[in-house]
Amino acid sequence: MKKIVVIGAVAAGSKAAAKSKRLDPEAQVDIYTDDTHVSYSACGLPYYVAGNFDDYKKLIVRTPEKFEESGIQVHLSHRVLKILPETKQILVRHAHKEFLVDYDKLVVATGAVPIIAPIKNVNLENVFTLRTLENGIAIKQHAHKSKHATIVGGGYIGIELLEAFVKQGLKVTMVEFAPHILSMFDEDISKLVKEHILSQDGNRVEIINSDAVVELVGDCCANKVVTRNGNMFETDMVVLSTGVKPNVELAKNAGIELGQTGAIKVDKHMKTSIDDIYACGDCCEKIQIVTGAPTWVPLGSTANKEGRCAALNLNGHVDEFQGVLGSAVTKYFGLTMSMTGLSTQQALESGLEPVSVVVTKLDKAGYMPEVKNITIKLIADKKSRKLIGAQAIGCGDADKRVNVITTALLGKMTADEFFNNDMTYAPPFSPSIDPLLNAAQMLVSKLNK
Amino acid sequence: MKKIVVIGAVAAGSKAAAKSKRLDPEAQVDIYTDDTHVSYSACGLPYYVAGNFDDYKKLIVRTPEKFEESGIQVHLSHRVLKILPETKQILVRHAHKEFLVDYDKLVVATGAVPIIAPIKNVNLENVFTLRTLENGIAIKQHAHKSKHATIVGGGYIGIELLEAFVKQGLKVTMVEFAPHILSMFDEDISKLVKEHILSQDGNRVEIINSDAVVELVGDCCANKVVTRNGNMFETDMVVLSTGVKPNVELAKNAGIELGQTGAIKVDKHMKTSIDDIYACGDCCEKIQIVTGAPTWVPLGSTANKEGRCAALNLNGHVDEFQGVLGSAVTKYFGLTMSMTGLSTQQALESGLEPVSVVVTKLDKAGYMPEVKNITIKLIADKKSRKLIGAQAIGCGDADKRVNVITTALLGKMTADEFFNNDMTYAPPFSPSIDPLLNAAQMLVSKLNK
Repeated sequence: MKKIVVIGAVAAGSKAAAKSKRLDPEAQVDIYTDDTHVSYSACGLPYYVAGNFDDYKKLIVRTPEKFEESGIQVHLSHRVLKILPETKQILVRHAHKEFLVDYDKLVVATGAVPIIAPIKNVNLENVFTLRTLENGIAIKQHAHKSKHATIVGGGYIGIELLEAFVKQGLKVTMVEFAPHILSMFDEDISKLVKEHILSQDGNRVEIINSDAVVELVGDCCANKVVTRNGNMFETDMVVLSTGVKPNVELAKNAGIELGQTGAIKVDKHMKTSIDDIYACGDCCEKIQIVTGAPTWVPLGSTANKEGRCAALNLNGHVDEFQGVLGSAVTKYFGLTMSMTGLSTQQALESGLEPVSVVVTKLDKAGYMPEVKNITIKLIADKKSRKLIGAQAIGCGDADKRVNVITTALLGKMTADEFFNNDMTYAPPFSPSIDPLLNAAQMLVSKLNK
Repeated sequence: MKKIVVIGAVAAGSKAAAKSKRLDPEAQVDIYTDDTHVSYSACGLPYYVAGNFDDYKKLIVRTPEKFEESGIQVHLSHRVLKILPETKQILVRHAHKEFLVDYDKLVVATGAVPIIAPIKNVNLENVFTLRTLENGIAIKQHAHKSKHATIVGGGYIGIELLEAFVKQGLKVTMVEFAPHILSMFDEDISKLVKEHILSQDGNRVEIINSDAVVELVGDCCANKVVTRNGNMFETDMVVLSTGVKPNVELAKNAGIELGQTGAIKVDKHMKTSIDDIYACGDCCEKIQIVTGAPTWVPLGSTANKEGRCAALNLNGHVDEFQGVLGSAVTKYFGLTMSMTGLSTQQALESGLEPVSVVVTKLDKAGYMPEVKNITIKLIADKKSRKLIGAQAIGCGDADKRVNVITTALLGKMTADEFFNNDMTYAPPFSPSIDPLLNAAQMLVSKLNK
């Protein structure tokens, strides 16, 4: 009987375990995690904090009981201390006891961990990160008794928490180190997002850019925030969302090779450098499809696919994970922000010559009552004329328009080819020339110059 | 000075005229049309009838005055009787006078005309078609004093009028010749649409399939409808939406070659078989990108692109129109119905071997309050494994998900390639595995069997 051991079980690990058991019902499948929950939608945590639903259990895809019903053993609050590839074992600690567990196939799905900025008193009680279900529950509880929250970091999680806190009636100060929030977007686009947020909620939201929190003041709880540039303000809670890094200590200590991004290096079958050890999810490196180069983009949708791919291969099937485009979406109330592929900056760093256009157009026929603006940035490479990235912000389905471009990137289409796209048209859904085609047309003209 | 004459000016003709004048400001550009309006969104007419806006002028993109300001002469209510290619003239009738007009370049944009079913008393006063702005105004006026409307034909226009009349408080009987409405969709999908409409509005909507209206009873106005199968019911107005055919009489009589679909044959530059005569819009044949074969799909978005392409080429530039996918979308209140590429039936007729899957999934993460179902049908060709078509119905952005597939069809992607698509994910926008990817995964499995 094959022994499959999976370390970590949010998205990738739980998928790998469940799929493995389906592929080989005879196998013994064990999940070890230091978390108190498995198989939940970490991406849904901000929406739980926001009050879209009250029961955090809705975030749970599969309970430990469900896993056990299907014959998978789930070991919660079990910390894996070491991987021992030579004896094919892991060393586990649980309730002050340590013991060895044998494996035939091992799946490392240790995810990512928050980057903690060097802030004085960062360990005070009301300072949080948002990564696990426990974190989400704690933040929501604390928000209920708070009037002001500080968000350190203006990335996706920061923006989602901003919406959540505003929805819960809090005032919020966001402090972002970079000169603009949402730094995965080009500055011209993220500037528009900031303007939108402040024009809508400027009375309760402050966004401080190009600054860093250096100190939290308080006894058990932080009640004052001090920044490098001398900003000082009172607060009732602080959430650090200054990014995450791959959680690779276990893998590294076992001698598993890391890639140039610092995440675990895997091949297209999700195999690591050590036999019978697979990795999937946020802990491992991916290939950027546009450039073919290694990248690290930690996202739940990718984790799911990688978990499935790892399970297939370790159970004797052949499956290849082709990589990622870096597609993502978030929202602030009605404003959707979405992107795929390379930003202008990333394109330059990859040695490409980005040419881009930005168009702001109506998202439906102008005479329809629900018509709104959508702004689309489309980026191509000067030499190959291939599309390499897109960014869109707008009220509503800006994300779905970006998904049209993810498909074009996957197909390695030039701007010229894409302009031939025969997209659906009816007045309640788009103008007769879709904004994406306007953008493509302008891009073709610009490439011709 | 070059004389450019354009016949017809809804979408294609007005685009060709405006673009020509921009490309060659010295040219004399004249539009001749028997319509009383030019440059309007015919696709918007049902939304005007529905009362989404009250002023029909909102549908007008460019008034005759605007055209004249930019130096384009618009001749309304001028019927072109003949094209005389040998002398490069057209024969025009206006207010009982006939006269000849010279051209150097001629653009035929005569559009499509409704197919009138063989119905007794079809010329009664309250029997309408919906093609021109005048038609739309007349239908809306009549609807205001009606309690029951009959719609003959259950295609896109029929469905849009159904929504419009229900919105205006009328009861409606729809009679469709085919066994299912929306016959461009596969029956399994259109059946769901019918079920949805009847479950939502069954108290005011009746849909009769596999039947035909054979007689209208009344003196000046029809007040009773009689069908072939013996159905008989009272009504206050009748709209015929039994499809359209290309309006090619003028072209045909001038010796311009028609294609196998009966529409005007054009090359990629929108040139007809006769020198210096171009055609664009609903009157001309298109290439179906999926099969490379001629097709006829009359749609406003295509007309726009073809008008632009014709203008570029007749003004000495080189531009190619690559064809259409047959992408379309419509809605019935909150239910969006969208499709692209070939239906199963069309695929069979094209000699392909269609393999399809239908999935019904949540369109967002299950814990989000606004979550709805979406049903997607994805069709591939067994031999090549290439995607050849998609159909989607759902509440909301089903059309945008179809646009992801239009791009895959344009890129000639196999189901396997498409499954690698890295689409955006966040809980308010899609499940972590998008329904399109679920469908692609199932399709790959089915193709492997």
